[in-house]
Amino acid sequence: VTDRFELDAVAVAAATELQGRLTKPPGALGQLEAISIQLAGIARLCPPPVPTQVAIAVFAGDHGVVASGVTPWPSEVTGQMVMNFANGGAAINVIARSCGATITVVDVGVATPLDPGLNIVHRNVRRGTADLSVGPAMTTDEAAAAMAVGRSVASELVASGAQLLVTGEMGIGNTTPSAVLIGALCNADAMAVTGRGTGIDDAHLARKQAIVAAALTRTHQLAPIELLAEVGGLEIAALVGLITAGVERRVPVILDGVIALAAACVAEAMQPGVMLGCIAGHRSTEPAATIALAHLGLSPLIDLGLRLGEGSGAALAVPLVQAAARLIGEMATFDSAGVTDKS
Amino acid sequence: VTDRFELDAVAVAAATELQGRLTKPPGALGQLEAISIQLAGIARLCPPPVPTQVAIAVFAGDHGVVASGVTPWPSEVTGQMVMNFANGGAAINVIARSCGATITVVDVGVATPLDPGLNIVHRNVRRGTADLSVGPAMTTDEAAAAMAVGRSVASELVASGAQLLVTGEMGIGNTTPSAVLIGALCNADAMAVTGRGTGIDDAHLARKQAIVAAALTRTHQLAPIELLAEVGGLEIAALVGLITAGVERRVPVILDGVIALAAACVAEAMQPGVMLGCIAGHRSTEPAATIALAHLGLSPLIDLGLRLGEGSGAALAVPLVQAAARLIGEMATFDSAGVTDKS
Repeated sequence: VTDRFELDAVAVAAATELQGRLTKPPGALGQLEAISIQLAGIARLCPPPVPTQVAIAVFAGDHGVVASGVTPWPSEVTGQMVMNFANGGAAINVIARSCGATITVVDVGVATPLDPGLNIVHRNVRRGTADLSVGPAMTTDEAAAAMAVGRSVASELVASGAQLLVTGEMGIGNTTPSAVLIGALCNADAMAVTGRGTGIDDAHLARKQAIVAAALTRTHQLAPIELLAEVGGLEIAALVGLITAGVERRVPVILDGVIALAAACVAEAMQPGVMLGCIAGHRSTEPAATIALAHLGLSPLIDLGLRLGEGSGAALAVPLVQAAARLIGEMATFDSAGVTDKS
Repeated sequence: VTDRFELDAVAVAAATELQGRLTKPPGALGQLEAISIQLAGIARLCPPPVPTQVAIAVFAGDHGVVASGVTPWPSEVTGQMVMNFANGGAAINVIARSCGATITVVDVGVATPLDPGLNIVHRNVRRGTADLSVGPAMTTDEAAAAMAVGRSVASELVASGAQLLVTGEMGIGNTTPSAVLIGALCNADAMAVTGRGTGIDDAHLARKQAIVAAALTRTHQLAPIELLAEVGGLEIAALVGLITAGVERRVPVILDGVIALAAACVAEAMQPGVMLGCIAGHRSTEPAATIALAHLGLSPLIDLGLRLGEGSGAALAVPLVQAAARLIGEMATFDSAGVTDKS
């Protein structure tokens, strides 16, 4: 455990004061002003740097609980989508091109063996979790190993110049472990945290709710790493590592939807304060996402009814974060522009 | 009056069908799917072109009603901000650079005489409106002339290659005429449509509400052009022209906040159907904005507590509109990517 993460108070005060002198009515840029102040506090610099080098990390893992009928999509789709990512055809690839971000795809727990020649990062810890409805999803050692993968990916991306990290994931079935993690860490019940994920029907939803409810009964008194092992996922654990390592390096992390928010709840439980370095990219339609956002005190930038994952909602928010940084850094002040402030 | 604008049904059907084959659960891209289908319908092409050439038009005008104490900002600020736009220091300049858009600043009604050498479009119809709390803001000829300015700017921008238009404006006091226009066209009362604009205090707000209420009593039975002249503004009239001319040329128009929405309500009253070619960039905090959005049937892309105007909220939505177009055009299909669709 490292020191608690804090925003730099001097930079926060300077950014707050600067926002009041820019040529606009006070507060007129709404949440973008808060983001600019947060970015200054993370970077320890006012105005903060404009994060032009953006890195999306997409962690892929499979889930044993798919065998219990929580989704109509077969687990094979996880590996197929990894190949789609590698070929540039998935939504996250298109959004990355649209905002000029790089994508790093990481196999941290895909069940299907992937061609070692596939142009992704091969760091498979185990070929998918066990069925969390039957027993522990993985061991704490495996959860720690998956977290370490996320930490090392974050370190490498930051070392390569990334100024902004975006959380992405792929894993058929992964809204189920996310619902359990959020239920456990936000003290919410199975009915409240369980959603339709990719758009499942009533029969799948009923099974999913029952599985989440049963799993929640096993989560009391567990330390965060034990909880992650008991009901989590390998890509979720990797995201916990990415988030904590990115924020430690004072690089802001944009969180995607419910899977990333489950990882964020674990990260905040492990290292209180880490959320000060995170930005909520969007509000997913999954009900657990809204519960986690409230628990973490985050206000999402985008709310467009998205429920795709992959990092799509977070990547769509990248231009807003960049604009927030540019606005505080590039706008004229009343003095410099010769504009009369209100009487 | 031209033919009623319609989305192209063939392109809409093709885009709807294509969205169902892309490698994602149906509907998972939420409102971006609807935007992509609308863009196809506007362009009469599926997939629609990605609008990389984006033009922001900022119309500036002054308001006689400022003399009646609706805002603490002096009218001189309108001309000062025009110079700030010309020098690249305003929020809209920064956002334009951030999203790669051009800005065209148009003096259609600024009260302060501006240097003819200033690098803007000089099309002043009259040096600010008269005080709408005392009598008509302008003549119908002046309103028509300001609309014609907006139409010609739209034509020139489209002729120069613009594939997406963004509405911008500057005019100290212009939330007052906007509130009256929205109240009249959406059948809402003064208390409902009058907000704090730039952030006015209770005394200014009380005066503003009384002025809006009194003006609304004069608006019954007026044709849209008469309404625009009686209680509108020169920059608002120009926006009406820009919106209608852009949509006629089948170029989508992103609407900014309450001023643009007032113009949009007038445009829709003049040419029903024109809103099919428009996209709501954001939801301003001004209460009349939400009333107008509901009246026009528009769902905003961004909701970040912005209340700046200038086109800022609309310009911030540009990357989302571009991403929507790229997603439908560039994502792989289940067939092409070899991904198994759900069972």
